[in-house]
Amino acid sequence: MSGAPSIPMSATLAADEALDRRRRAGEQVLPMAGGEIGLPVLPALRRRLAAAADANAYGPVAGSRALRAAAAGYWGRRRLPTDPELVVAGPGSKPLLFALLLALGGDVVVPVPSWVSYAAQARLVGARPVPVPIAPGQGGVPDPERLRAAVTAARAAGHDPRSVVVTLPDNPTGSVASPGTVRALAAAARELDLVIVSDEIYCDLVYDASEPAESPALHAPERTVVTTGLTKNLAVGGWRTGVARLPDSDTGRALHGRLVPVASQIWSSPPAPVQAAAAYAFDEPPEVVERVAASRRLHETVARAVAGRLTDAGALLAPVRATCYLYPDFTPLGDRLARAHDVHGGADLVRFLGERHGIGLLPAGAFGEDGDPLRIRAATSRLYGEDDAQRTAALAAPDPLQLPWIRANLAHIDAALADLTGTRTPRA
Amino acid sequence: MSGAPSIPMSATLAADEALDRRRRAGEQVLPMAGGEIGLPVLPALRRRLAAAADANAYGPVAGSRALRAAAAGYWGRRRLPTDPELVVAGPGSKPLLFALLLALGGDVVVPVPSWVSYAAQARLVGARPVPVPIAPGQGGVPDPERLRAAVTAARAAGHDPRSVVVTLPDNPTGSVASPGTVRALAAAARELDLVIVSDEIYCDLVYDASEPAESPALHAPERTVVTTGLTKNLAVGGWRTGVARLPDSDTGRALHGRLVPVASQIWSSPPAPVQAAAAYAFDEPPEVVERVAASRRLHETVARAVAGRLTDAGALLAPVRATCYLYPDFTPLGDRLARAHDVHGGADLVRFLGERHGIGLLPAGAFGEDGDPLRIRAATSRLYGEDDAQRTAALAAPDPLQLPWIRANLAHIDAALADLTGTRTPRA
Repeated sequence: MSGAPSIPMSATLAADEALDRRRRAGEQVLPMAGGEIGLPVLPALRRRLAAAADANAYGPVAGSRALRAAAAGYWGRRRLPTDPELVVAGPGSKPLLFALLLALGGDVVVPVPSWVSYAAQARLVGARPVPVPIAPGQGGVPDPERLRAAVTAARAAGHDPRSVVVTLPDNPTGSVASPGTVRALAAAARELDLVIVSDEIYCDLVYDASEPAESPALHAPERTVVTTGLTKNLAVGGWRTGVARLPDSDTGRALHGRLVPVASQIWSSPPAPVQAAAAYAFDEPPEVVERVAASRRLHETVARAVAGRLTDAGALLAPVRATCYLYPDFTPLGDRLARAHDVHGGADLVRFLGERHGIGLLPAGAFGEDGDPLRIRAATSRLYGEDDAQRTAALAAPDPLQLPWIRANLAHIDAALADLTGTRTPRA
Repeated sequence: MSGAPSIPMSATLAADEALDRRRRAGEQVLPMAGGEIGLPVLPALRRRLAAAADANAYGPVAGSRALRAAAAGYWGRRRLPTDPELVVAGPGSKPLLFALLLALGGDVVVPVPSWVSYAAQARLVGARPVPVPIAPGQGGVPDPERLRAAVTAARAAGHDPRSVVVTLPDNPTGSVASPGTVRALAAAARELDLVIVSDEIYCDLVYDASEPAESPALHAPERTVVTTGLTKNLAVGGWRTGVARLPDSDTGRALHGRLVPVASQIWSSPPAPVQAAAAYAFDEPPEVVERVAASRRLHETVARAVAGRLTDAGALLAPVRATCYLYPDFTPLGDRLARAHDVHGGADLVRFLGERHGIGLLPAGAFGEDGDPLRIRAATSRLYGEDDAQRTAALAAPDPLQLPWIRANLAHIDAALADLTGTRTPRA
């Protein structure tokens, strides 16, 4: 028997769609719920897709030779030498993660908080997500000590955890777990005989290039699957492309032998014209490297500007080191929010800011946090402009915060925070 | 718990990949295993994709408004008036079928024989495929009387069949179930309270336009989901695009409410540039209609030519009315094949023709038939040429059978059949 009666709509996609409806109805809205990157396609990348419009054959289930070789090179330049035969491409890293869960079998450990779809996908395949909290500031990686305890308890209760998902850098917290935490996680996974699925889709969006995210594949190479895509670094989420790097080990080859058949039965092959463009992007010619760098600078500038406003308003926020996500904790403002606005948790706060200020956000509960804490996730990646002209200008601007439309978006946030906190003098 | 240890690779995709390796190694091969359509992309369709290369946003999970409206119009012109709000697009009809099985829950009745992925997908979601044979000549539709008996028995055994998959027109048999059979199936499904999932991806490939395939949605509109795509009529399998039409009923709306969340967790949205091109195609402007008609004529001409050779060789074959598939039964040649070639079943026959003649085929066992009957499926859709120039010429030719490369492919088949049957005078 199977069934998916209780699978919720992806919270990010649902919130985005709802806000887009309000925008179309003429409201002034600020979409900060979904992680879509509001930037135009790099022209050279767009040309590659257009030039491949005659590619109509399925090609190999695991993706074209060119794409797998390019992805292998991409990882090779990031301290992870890769055999193209152990790369599997898919129509997005989300379907790849889903197929991996099916191919791995068993239950799966997910960090708390973590991306909205890990636990939902696990439930969808009939697995039990085993939630394990992160240590403070170590977003995306279940606390290794608590991981040991949780897996031991789950196994004692007759469950069957076989894998652990990590996110490096992290969504929703925008933090990057330290190399020490990653090493400890790798060691714990080896002790517990868990496969590590490391979602590294944000790996090019670490602000300080001298402190890249550490992949667990460096420390537990025999058991770590790495996934990534072009959705975040090159803003082509709507194209649907992703790649997985399987371990060069007996475990990895056995997993490959299960993953490719699963892929063949669910999606056949990734979209062929997109594969051609993706092969070009993973090869990282200079114009691609420059565009990713410009995007990273823009994310950093705007995310830090919003982070400053949130901490000025009294929210707690871990240092933001990557991505375009902020995960502020409004607990210090709890009394004020309850008294003035009848806001008692993250869900209330999201509703308040959505209804009264047209700002789309997600509550911590969407990321698996229990008890509806007074915490939300804000994505800053759609503040860059309304159209490609504005967004291109934002990418090129020496100081994007001075662009009128970005100033207006920040003022929108200021006004909402002033209302929230009862201050009358929003930051200029 | 979950797991997919025993999911086989899609037989069609696996056979295609294996033969492509031999072709690259310089062998003269004839790929007749997979159902890929070896025709170029219609230039106007290709231009639409290229023009949409800047479409990088996810858009709605269910697909763009334009695509859903176009698909609704497409069905409306085929006696199925459709509400665009009940259309769900996906990255291929295969992922849509998979997500439908998850959203429907329960076990699923599949016809025998039927497409390689229905039963595999059912197993992948933890459901039990309930096999029900077709009546002779009524490919794609489980025999309604046997359906009643099988579902009753399955329920008595504690299983939970909730849906039945049908294929109209049919793969692998190339036949089209009669309106009477479809009506009886619809009545049985209503009695048994089964949702019908009607895979109509070949519906534009019925040779005689005066006898279209009858959709069960005409007879059980409240419980029939129809799926289709552009893979077969416009040869863009590698683009990955498909659409599902949900019933305009409480059942249909409830299913929509489960299907879209499942889609959001597996694939987010269909590839955006492909959606733009697909919307254009489903609108069916004259050049699209002409191309589909030319493809249909070519399929008919070549499939009939191969069918004639198979029956001349002594195989049994139901009248071929649609698609590019032939499903010959070599049982009458059983003694000769056993004696001369040590061939005792469909698997042997496929191996013999593959190894000795470089012809890719699939045995009946790949389509769920028990006991390895002496029967194979041959797809004729890749005999049209080696490159776009040859394939374009094949589409335009008044008599494609006179083109040298198609003659050569038919001679390749003649030689294999002459070897098989021991005749020394292959057809000229």
